[in-house]
Amino acid sequence: MPDRVLRLQRIARATAVRAPARRPVMIAIAGDSAAGKTTLSGGLATLLGPGRVTTICVDDYHRYDREERRKLPFTALHPDCNYIGIMEQHLQLLATGEPILKPVYDHRTGQLARPELVCPGDFVIAEGLLPLHTKLARACFDIAVYLDPPEEIRRRWKIDRGVGKRGYDKHQVEAELQRREQESADFIRPQREYADVVVRFAPISEREDPPGTPLSAKLLLRPTIRHPDLSKVLAGDRRWTIHLKLDREENGRPVDALHIHGYAPREDSQEVEKAIWAQLGLEPGDPIHTLGHLANGERSEPLAITQLILLYHMLDESR
Amino acid sequence: MPDRVLRLQRIARATAVRAPARRPVMIAIAGDSAAGKTTLSGGLATLLGPGRVTTICVDDYHRYDREERRKLPFTALHPDCNYIGIMEQHLQLLATGEPILKPVYDHRTGQLARPELVCPGDFVIAEGLLPLHTKLARACFDIAVYLDPPEEIRRRWKIDRGVGKRGYDKHQVEAELQRREQESADFIRPQREYADVVVRFAPISEREDPPGTPLSAKLLLRPTIRHPDLSKVLAGDRRWTIHLKLDREENGRPVDALHIHGYAPREDSQEVEKAIWAQLGLEPGDPIHTLGHLANGERSEPLAITQLILLYHMLDESR
Repeated sequence: MPDRVLRLQRIARATAVRAPARRPVMIAIAGDSAAGKTTLSGGLATLLGPGRVTTICVDDYHRYDREERRKLPFTALHPDCNYIGIMEQHLQLLATGEPILKPVYDHRTGQLARPELVCPGDFVIAEGLLPLHTKLARACFDIAVYLDPPEEIRRRWKIDRGVGKRGYDKHQVEAELQRREQESADFIRPQREYADVVVRFAPISEREDPPGTPLSAKLLLRPTIRHPDLSKVLAGDRRWTIHLKLDREENGRPVDALHIHGYAPREDSQEVEKAIWAQLGLEPGDPIHTLGHLANGERSEPLAITQLILLYHMLDESR
Repeated sequence: MPDRVLRLQRIARATAVRAPARRPVMIAIAGDSAAGKTTLSGGLATLLGPGRVTTICVDDYHRYDREERRKLPFTALHPDCNYIGIMEQHLQLLATGEPILKPVYDHRTGQLARPELVCPGDFVIAEGLLPLHTKLARACFDIAVYLDPPEEIRRRWKIDRGVGKRGYDKHQVEAELQRREQESADFIRPQREYADVVVRFAPISEREDPPGTPLSAKLLLRPTIRHPDLSKVLAGDRRWTIHLKLDREENGRPVDALHIHGYAPREDSQEVEKAIWAQLGLEPGDPIHTLGHLANGERSEPLAITQLILLYHMLDESR
């Protein structure tokens, strides 16, 4: 029946001509549970504004609710526990400017709720556990980010959130982390390989930070996409705040490692932010203050600078 | 950014090559509330088997739940009350053999529930209020059917169902019918024009049927698709049971009107059914008894014959 498909394509195209779908810039933010995905994406979404950015969480593609999962031999991290094929389909639709009716998983109740209409803005941020799991899903993104905190820090974040925000006790969260470990290793962490930018918030290993020092950030800027020319920003007197180091990954591939120091004086970091902001061709002004917000209400300059680097890529792709 | 779309298409195609999506035969059964859509489609689905047939109800694309609709100036019949664009998108996906995550409207509770995965079988029956509302939706179907009972009969069916099965009182159902009338006229009945087959169950007007006589059926077989050659079935001595009449529609277009008489003796009708069955190239056997079942548990030979005509089209398109 090729005639019907032809007719379908012709009519679909004729319809599209009336309102041509604009292809949005697609960014993936992948990482394990409590790796800081929402903290990273939230600032970008706020800065660009909800009218321009559409954020989706691909954990909404969970196939089972919490109750059903209890009887299953795998956790929510397992691809079989998610509608991966539908996630791919929806990412393709968004990448070509089409709306989707997205499923909704309610983290609060653990239930699957009524789906919601999502129309892509100029930018689509897809964050979650498995956005980079398949080749087709990866092909949907212009920029792929993987959040890679050291496990002990992620555990602490996971426990803080589980106990504070979701009302579990510490042992419950620890048991859950234990239950998920094998699937993290099998399905979540392998996505790190496919990221254009790997982001690691951690203390600097070379020195002992005094208590209360914000975490530093290390960004692997892989040559899979064209990164901003930071030579002006990285002028000699800023090495204390930020510096770029040519490195090799474990697999031997060359990579740029951008180090952003949490111990640098805040005003120095903010100078760097302004310099990147200017290089983005943006007007000096307010929006920059929407970056760098941590979930606990505190401010992190390394987070703000990381967000600016990602913002660079988003704006660059949209040009 | 055309490069990304190219890459997407290439990877999507490479993935599809591994498991080529088979394009199903698509049939629409459109009609107003309580026009008999499920009765008509149910027999076909049972006969062909759930493994081969996928039935979806496009009323699942309701945008609002019953509670929300109370505050709105239109009823569930209005296109604005439905995700028509998503319905089109999902019909296109099904028509090209792709799965969908279909929204679910629960008629019992009036709420929107968690969506469900639908993988198209060899045949997809899409029944509901608005499957033929847009050009793109219509382009998805191989066979389009519109159910067109006289309004007084549909009202009786609607009241019977509303009172018996859904627990409303008669006046509530009548008020609802009243509230929906304008939108029926504006959006539901115009779909009749786009059907390949218009089905009307009604008493024969030329004579007074004794009480208890099953309804007759009149099928407009429009020349928009190739209809079965019924010349053998319509041999002279069967005129009492079934006959074909060349006619003109109100707009002047030529049409074949197939009359199937409810007052014909059951054995005569069943002879006709067997003749059509044989012409379909199917083995004589049991499955034929799954046709003709009314919602009240009774049997209607005109319904069975109507279903056989539609079955002819479905099998014909699949060859």
